[in-house]
Amino acid sequence: MSEKSMTIIATKGTLDWAYPPFILSSTAAALGYNVTMFFTFYGLQLLKKDLNLSVSPLGNPGMPMKMPFGPSWFKGINWNIPNLLQAGVPGFETVATSLMKKTIKNKGVASISELRDLCLEADVEMIGCQMTMDLFDMKRPELIDDISVGGAATYMERAGESDINLFI
Amino acid sequence: MSEKSMTIIATKGTLDWAYPPFILSSTAAALGYNVTMFFTFYGLQLLKKDLNLSVSPLGNPGMPMKMPFGPSWFKGINWNIPNLLQAGVPGFETVATSLMKKTIKNKGVASISELRDLCLEADVEMIGCQMTMDLFDMKRPELIDDISVGGAATYMERAGESDINLFI
Amino acid sequence: MSEKSMTIIATKGTLDWAYPPFILSSTAAALGYNVTMFFTFYGLQLLKKDLNLSVSPLGNPGMPMKMPFGPSWFKGINWNIPNLLQAGVPGFETVATSLMKKTIKNKGVASISELRDLCLEADVEMIGCQMTMDLFDMKRPELIDDISVGGAATYMERAGESDINLFI
Repeated sequence: MSEKSMTIIATKGTLDWAYPPFILSSTAAALGYNVTMFFTFYGLQLLKKDLNLSVSPLGNPGMPMKMPFGPSWFKGINWNIPNLLQAGVPGFETVATSLMKKTIKNKGVASISELRDLCLEADVEMIGCQMTMDLFDMKRPELIDDISVGGAATYMERAGESDINLFI
Repeated sequence: MSEKSMTIIATKGTLDWAYPPFILSSTAAALGYNVTMFFTFYGLQLLKKDLNLSVSPLGNPGMPMKMPFGPSWFKGINWNIPNLLQAGVPGFETVATSLMKKTIKNKGVASISELRDLCLEADVEMIGCQMTMDLFDMKRPELIDDISVGGAATYMERAGESDINLFI
Repeated sequence: MSEKSMTIIATKGTLDWAYPPFILSSTAAALGYNVTMFFTFYGLQLLKKDLNLSVSPLGNPGMPMKMPFGPSWFKGINWNIPNLLQAGVPGFETVATSLMKKTIKNKGVASISELRDLCLEADVEMIGCQMTMDLFDMKRPELIDDISVGGAATYMERAGESDINLFI
């Protein structure tokens, strides 16, 4: 093969961790790589027609929570919100998700749905994991059309011949 | 080398994240790959004789929580249980773990212990991380017999010659 | 290229997950590898001059919490502290972080800051992700001097020619 190729296993189903696989895949495709994405475990959520991803700061003290609005002194504060408050306020994850979405939009970063479309337009191959579909009772019509369904052996075929293989 | 080879660094010690390293390793071995697994950090738990893995939905809004029993309308609901409830009910993780184990069994998916045996029978090399054992005060007899103990340099030797290298 | 090379994408910003990228990079560099580290998402925290990393046991039942002090029968207990307590006690993460730091120090393991210096002395290339800096409003002076700033395309250039590529 003269062309370079990359595979990515996407295993996470939250708003923040949805970015790395789609950003790396669209970048690689733009640079001429053959790219295969294998969606398994919680990552299968990223193939849903009805994308409804959330983010949780619970248990992730590495997440900087800055307000995307308000005066600059207010936005500059690092909101280290105690876990009790996070766990106790119903809908805290909804607030955190909405804050992250606003930040992303304000900064001009594409949405996950847009990045996914970009990858499909660039002929990135997307494979949904059959075993995960069985395990989580997900039906084929819940997932977008332009993908195939396969197993770990299908993934191995691509990865064994690829220059870059990442597990995300 | 004419044979293909793969290395996996297994770093997570929860029931859900125990699956990807063992599924990928057993699949690769079945396809004729030479496979080396390096268990480090929380992943060292996966080498214990007494496997006692849990799963936590806390901080992972990407985890679909469906009931594996009950009438179909009941099972179909997506149980977005608030974090307060999850954090507040003692033993919630026990319930979540038990639910996941039931689902796995009902779906005919092998247990981690079975997959680990399968890998060993297929001559997958398993290495426990010495530094992690020192850090967490884990003694050699707590771990299964058919493994060796080594460090990052041992891992690098294998990875530098492998076709696929994954960090899980 | 006759020399071996490795790239690592470091995406996590907690005290525990800061170790794998720096340990693997310093080991590889000591073995003569050309190493490139790309810091993105929460991993950008690892490039801050003012390193202030925490660890959270919330949602990670795989983390063994053993006390690094006290009589041996006390230290031997596996502290499965309920999530409510963890979430409810203000500063629980501070306690967990302090416990882990003490354990690390008692075991003679280097601090993250020391490992980072070791990598820089061994000519490990470190690249901070421009997009993440924009997204999280991080300014160049907050990060250490001996790094460059780049994007996913810069990473792809290195990864496409490397023997080992890991996403951590």
